[in-house]
Amino acid sequence: MTQAVVLLSGGLDSVTCLAEALSVGHTVTTLSFDYGQRHRAELAAAARIARHYGITDHRVITLDLAQLRGSALTDSAVRVPEHEPNAPRPDGIPVTYVPARNTVFLSFALAVAEVTGAEALYIGVNAIDYSGYPDCRPAFIDAFRTLAQLATKAGIEGRPLDVCTPLLHLSKREIIQRGVSLGVSYADTVSCYQADDEGRACGRCDACHLRREGFQEAAIPDPTRYVSPVS
Amino acid sequence: MTQAVVLLSGGLDSVTCLAEALSVGHTVTTLSFDYGQRHRAELAAAARIARHYGITDHRVITLDLAQLRGSALTDSAVRVPEHEPNAPRPDGIPVTYVPARNTVFLSFALAVAEVTGAEALYIGVNAIDYSGYPDCRPAFIDAFRTLAQLATKAGIEGRPLDVCTPLLHLSKREIIQRGVSLGVSYADTVSCYQADDEGRACGRCDACHLRREGFQEAAIPDPTRYVSPVS
Repeated sequence: MTQAVVLLSGGLDSVTCLAEALSVGHTVTTLSFDYGQRHRAELAAAARIARHYGITDHRVITLDLAQLRGSALTDSAVRVPEHEPNAPRPDGIPVTYVPARNTVFLSFALAVAEVTGAEALYIGVNAIDYSGYPDCRPAFIDAFRTLAQLATKAGIEGRPLDVCTPLLHLSKREIIQRGVSLGVSYADTVSCYQADDEGRACGRCDACHLRREGFQEAAIPDPTRYVSPVS
Repeated sequence: MTQAVVLLSGGLDSVTCLAEALSVGHTVTTLSFDYGQRHRAELAAAARIARHYGITDHRVITLDLAQLRGSALTDSAVRVPEHEPNAPRPDGIPVTYVPARNTVFLSFALAVAEVTGAEALYIGVNAIDYSGYPDCRPAFIDAFRTLAQLATKAGIEGRPLDVCTPLLHLSKREIIQRGVSLGVSYADTVSCYQADDEGRACGRCDACHLRREGFQEAAIPDPTRYVSPVS
């Protein structure tokens, strides 16, 4: 049994990632971040999911990102945009981008891996539905993989420390199909950028749109609980 | 005037780094981390130094490293070792290593750089007196430099974002000489791993030893305030 650290946001992708890590036999530490995100229901979902999978080492790290203003996901002054079905994917980077978020998350995962002796970090980044975030690109992951070896005691001692991104090249449909084949129940996951306190999704933001479309394309009933019916 | 982010621990190296960044004309944001380090006097020193240099944007980020036990610098159960003058440099990595610390610090600096539009990050790592920490090696810095371009909006938009390590290949003597030539006063800096609340150094740990030796070799009077006289 080898150790792995899985970044568990409580969303659809991260749960699928957790199921992947468990399916290959890793003993898993799950790691969530409380970074003042609007959708606090995510954190509750992550804790429920960790319990569901019998994870005995679920850690929540509080991040002080208050000084990083300007993202719709952490700054209540910035409005979360609604998905516009017929609009072209905008150029540039959306307001939901949190500066250097995945770099910060992976850095903490690396620190936890050093402490637990983990051989792998799992992160559910996706290069297809990545919404223009720079830190979801394959080249970013490759660079972090190189860094992980150089930054750590594990690397100096010649122990492996891989960065695993099993969802990197999958569409949302394929992620859902993969998860279902691994026995994942998505009812408890929260993907919405502005879910309410009970984890109900708005049905209107980009994250909701991508998720809903994924279930439709996979021909799997959408178990998401919405605030109000979505046509 | 271009923006830079300087990691300012309050120690001798980071102040020299700040002086370097200012000397080339950057407008500087200084960044300190409150990560439960034993030597809290460092944080007070960093704030004083930032004021001394007229920095209007000094930020302190609280890091929740409580879950990363096992380093003498953050875990009071681990004793800070005394310097042993005639002992060979130990193989392996000392107990004062904080897992993935520089990766975490640089990740936050990267996030701040995204927010402020900085073109450079300064970190006072040193490959000579690096005490065996993996994340002080030139190869680590090179890997983070690559990552910084890939991880950010700045990189996507083709703006430069460099990682500057002006002290990387300098001995402690050379760092002190360089700092003095830039007008740095080292009296206010705290390098000791276990300084007391007033910033007085123990005179016995590795950090104290390196610093003291640096002043001796530079033939510059050591302005360090020690808890008790050091022979």
